[in-house]
Amino acid sequence: MSKRVAVVLSGCGVFDGSEIYETVITLLRLDSSGSSYQCFAPDIPQHHVINHLTGEPMSEERNVLVEAARLARGKIKPLDQLDVELFEALIIPGGFGAAKNLSDFAFKGQQLSVLPVLQRVVKAFCDGGKPIGLICIAPAMAGKLFGQGVTCTIGNDADTASTVEATGAVHRECGVDGIVVDQQFKLVSTPAYMLAGRITEAASGINKLVDKVLELA
Amino acid sequence: MSKRVAVVLSGCGVFDGSEIYETVITLLRLDSSGSSYQCFAPDIPQHHVINHLTGEPMSEERNVLVEAARLARGKIKPLDQLDVELFEALIIPGGFGAAKNLSDFAFKGQQLSVLPVLQRVVKAFCDGGKPIGLICIAPAMAGKLFGQGVTCTIGNDADTASTVEATGAVHRECGVDGIVVDQQFKLVSTPAYMLAGRITEAASGINKLVDKVLELA
Repeated sequence: MSKRVAVVLSGCGVFDGSEIYETVITLLRLDSSGSSYQCFAPDIPQHHVINHLTGEPMSEERNVLVEAARLARGKIKPLDQLDVELFEALIIPGGFGAAKNLSDFAFKGQQLSVLPVLQRVVKAFCDGGKPIGLICIAPAMAGKLFGQGVTCTIGNDADTASTVEATGAVHRECGVDGIVVDQQFKLVSTPAYMLAGRITEAASGINKLVDKVLELA
Repeated sequence: MSKRVAVVLSGCGVFDGSEIYETVITLLRLDSSGSSYQCFAPDIPQHHVINHLTGEPMSEERNVLVEAARLARGKIKPLDQLDVELFEALIIPGGFGAAKNLSDFAFKGQQLSVLPVLQRVVKAFCDGGKPIGLICIAPAMAGKLFGQGVTCTIGNDADTASTVEATGAVHRECGVDGIVVDQQFKLVSTPAYMLAGRITEAASGINKLVDKVLELA
């Protein structure tokens, strides 16, 4: 059955926005599966702009929604217009945007806060018994988004895993081609570019995540 | 056998750079096929910056190489450092960057000029009997890059096709899931987002293009 999936983006580029390959692999798998998707992003300034050639910050300002629109070929809506009733599932790709724009995990670690609009959206999906997929570093928000005891993975980095556990989440190690499923919260997570060295490695786990999210929807 | 493929990018975003989905699908297919790739882009200012939410120009300046680095996860080199001896094939994804940054086809039509560094690179691949893949609007450069009589496709848009023919190329209509092969020049082209309405449609033609380019390499 065709499912409608909301995809929340955080910019366009691994170092300051959504990881591009993770996002495109997600959309390709959703479309291949006969499901439809709609992209959303918050209409807020990016935390900063990173020159992806040098890795250094640039002295300019960009807007998360406007840059995420690149990754959505213009077909994107502001996150505060996401009507949860219209979707059966939610997926959030990784990239530092999840830890810099959707939350401040990159700067505050276990003391992170998450965008209130995202917190509301996730709560509504969760309350509706609808599955959510978190990719790469996005599961670092799980403790804050779902509460104590939610189970997720960010791969196998010990420091990051221990910070994630300090937020109240339970961390499980997972290979790049695997997924971790929390049946209670219907949360699916996969490490993707927390571990991937090649694009096909990222795809191996993301494809499983998308399939599981659709199965749970 | 593993082939080494150079991929030339023109920015990051369909309206002012490389088409993101076309690029990622190309890289995914290359990696899935066991081939390796290296991305390149010219170190020049973008023609302009388009707000992908509104479609309107923005009053800022961006660099083609720096923005293309987003699409390459930072692993990119300036186009003038492309050593043709190190690669068996070349692929150029579409997006308006091919018609605004790599060439000026979007503004000058049949009177287009192509970046001299790209002209040199393509000539070297061509002289070496190495295949080249051009996706979406990138084949609009074929007449200028290969000369009279080269055969290619940009899909089925009559106006664009007639402009392409006015550059000296022979245009063949082609569906979104098809490719056109010029055996003499070893040029493979596919319409992708000149026609695609969905990402899987774009992938259907691009996957065939990548497979054919690798077969000819």
